Amino acid sequence: MIHAPALESILEGRRQRLRQIAAERGLEAVVMTSDASIAYLTGFSGLQFERLFAVVVMTVGSDVIIAPKLEEQAVSAAPTTIDRITYGPESNGLAELGATLGNARRLGVEEDHLNFSRANALSSAGFHLVGAGSLVMELRAQKDEHEVERIRQACYVVEQALERAFGELRIGDVEQDVNRRVEHWLRDQGATDVHALILFGPNSANPHGHVGAGSLAAGDVICADLSTCIEGYWGDLTRCGTAGPPSAWALETWGAVLKAQAAAIGATKVGVPANAIDAAQRQILETVPQLGRCLHGAGHAIGRDIHEPPYLVPRTETPVAAGMVFTIEPGLYQSGVGGIRLEDDVLVTEGGPVTLSTLPLGLRVVHS
Amino acid sequence: MIHAPALESILEGRRQRLRQIAAERGLEAVVMTSDASIAYLTGFSGLQFERLFAVVVMTVGSDVIIAPKLEEQAVSAAPTTIDRITYGPESNGLAELGATLGNARRLGVEEDHLNFSRANALSSAGFHLVGAGSLVMELRAQKDEHEVERIRQACYVVEQALERAFGELRIGDVEQDVNRRVEHWLRDQGATDVHALILFGPNSANPHGHVGAGSLAAGDVICADLSTCIEGYWGDLTRCGTAGPPSAWALETWGAVLKAQAAAIGATKVGVPANAIDAAQRQILETVPQLGRCLHGAGHAIGRDIHEPPYLVPRTETPVAAGMVFTIEPGLYQSGVGGIRLEDDVLVTEGGPVTLSTLPLGLRVVHS
Repeated sequence: MIHAPALESILEGRRQRLRQIAAERGLEAVVMTSDASIAYLTGFSGLQFERLFAVVVMTVGSDVIIAPKLEEQAVSAAPTTIDRITYGPESNGLAELGATLGNARRLGVEEDHLNFSRANALSSAGFHLVGAGSLVMELRAQKDEHEVERIRQACYVVEQALERAFGELRIGDVEQDVNRRVEHWLRDQGATDVHALILFGPNSANPHGHVGAGSLAAGDVICADLSTCIEGYWGDLTRCGTAGPPSAWALETWGAVLKAQAAAIGATKVGVPANAIDAAQRQILETVPQLGRCLHGAGHAIGRDIHEPPYLVPRTETPVAAGMVFTIEPGLYQSGVGGIRLEDDVLVTEGGPVTLSTLPLGLRVVHS
Repeated sequence: MIHAPALESILEGRRQRLRQIAAERGLEAVVMTSDASIAYLTGFSGLQFERLFAVVVMTVGSDVIIAPKLEEQAVSAAPTTIDRITYGPESNGLAELGATLGNARRLGVEEDHLNFSRANALSSAGFHLVGAGSLVMELRAQKDEHEVERIRQACYVVEQALERAFGELRIGDVEQDVNRRVEHWLRDQGATDVHALILFGPNSANPHGHVGAGSLAAGDVICADLSTCIEGYWGDLTRCGTAGPPSAWALETWGAVLKAQAAAIGATKVGVPANAIDAAQRQILETVPQLGRCLHGAGHAIGRDIHEPPYLVPRTETPVAAGMVFTIEPGLYQSGVGGIRLEDDVLVTEGGPVTLSTLPLGLRVVHS
């Protein structure tokens, strides 16, 4: 729990740094529209749907939150002293945004969030839009100690749920029921958002498989990926098991993935390009095509969003910096058989990578 | 349950109509990127996060789904025969989208979904983008009988949860616990997404208030708004109550909101502009400012998204058509006291409005 005055100064510090970088890039204002960036800069969490929410950070002038009138009370309660402007149902908020911007013309926007329609309306109104999502993401990427603590806390809750899930799992259990039960536990621990993806047997061969009505059969592999958002920050872990004694495939694949995870964590060092972490997993996984396919990057940054840049994929050359937190989650997937993935959330420090979770990586064996 | 061949022909019919409207507007292809539109046109439900998913409907040529390789298995299982193109982690999917489009240059896009970054990349690659979200939304707005049945089913599940919530609610119950419990019931009924917003006393004076740690006190008003997505379609209802006998304010406000809801439902007729429905609620609610403020429009269309256009707000002149389904949800909010809202989901038919739920609108009285 951070006390209000300290929080206000943290938020102000973030906006101040953003203002500074924006000015250096020749921007007159930055307009941030994603829920996560708004919360990061102001402490305010709204319910966006189709309505415009924005934080305007002026390089010269005062910062403002823009929100629908519907959110008046919620936005007043945000832990920041900056101005609020609300708009009623007769407006789409763009006129209010334009008025707030005054004579500023060169605007940084979150190009991965701002939609084409709003971008067009702003351009037509004479604003010059520049993609500036990377500016706020550079700040958001380097977590401070309070943020790391929250991610660690979310990981801890996920660990408890994984422990309990494997402890209670029995052959014959239905995938949908198991996932629902785990979601309930996580929400009972204060989770505001949850992804439960505990997949059985061949269904786990798809890293983004859909939870189904199938039940756990002897010989199935179990790939249990749980993520949860608590107090605004995510934790995301994966552990695997087998129903009955592991097959030779499961053991070998688990061994390869374990090695790949250790290599990728080992490569998570200040100054390396992010794709070097991905290369570290591939160097191991791609030598064992008989065990399965490497279908995704080594992971992604995590924080206020479950997936944040930098993404640990071949095309990302962003240098890794202290304070970044990544999921490191290599996996191998064999169609018709199953998937094995091991995932932890890892903090980058000057002294090397620090794993934020402590749950053992071993294959869990489940019985009837 | 719709059988696969029937579903395939429904999906094909939708794409065919979209193709036709697109051709009439001089478009060579339509690129739909939102989860809901993709599911509507192909039956495929993916897990999008930051990755590009798209359905390309060519005015001349074959339709294609574009998805990350990660979704290969899920996308193969989609109940449609159209082609799939998947891309690996080395790509952001735009090159594959460009190649699929071939010589088509004039593209309709979902302007409220496509982000500025992708729009810029496509424009730079020589495509001319035209906002065409309204084309698919015009189709999606007019629900067929299967879709109406699913919305009715979602409403039914919400009704049961509201009934149970009011039945079990006691003075002293904690807001967070009550909402969590209701979420669990809804998910146990197969909900894939849930918004539970049961607010007590002054907290209910904010239509988008945050569920908190407060407990239900004698004299509090209770505003219970539950929405849930089941098999791809949403139901969204609100009922109100009081802890102990209702105050004069609660009774009078409930009476005014009831009248406003009846008037708005009565105005939900084929051919009227959507803002006439909003005007019908305001005509009643704005004459009683002493009871509270009218903070939002009369409602919104509902279907695969919880909020869909047309929105029932002053600026919407879209004509109401048979097959549209709207939430009709007038409310009055008195700061420091509470809010009363009554919400039903209403189908527009040639014969007049049909309410898809049957739960009585009466104020529920809760005891200790």
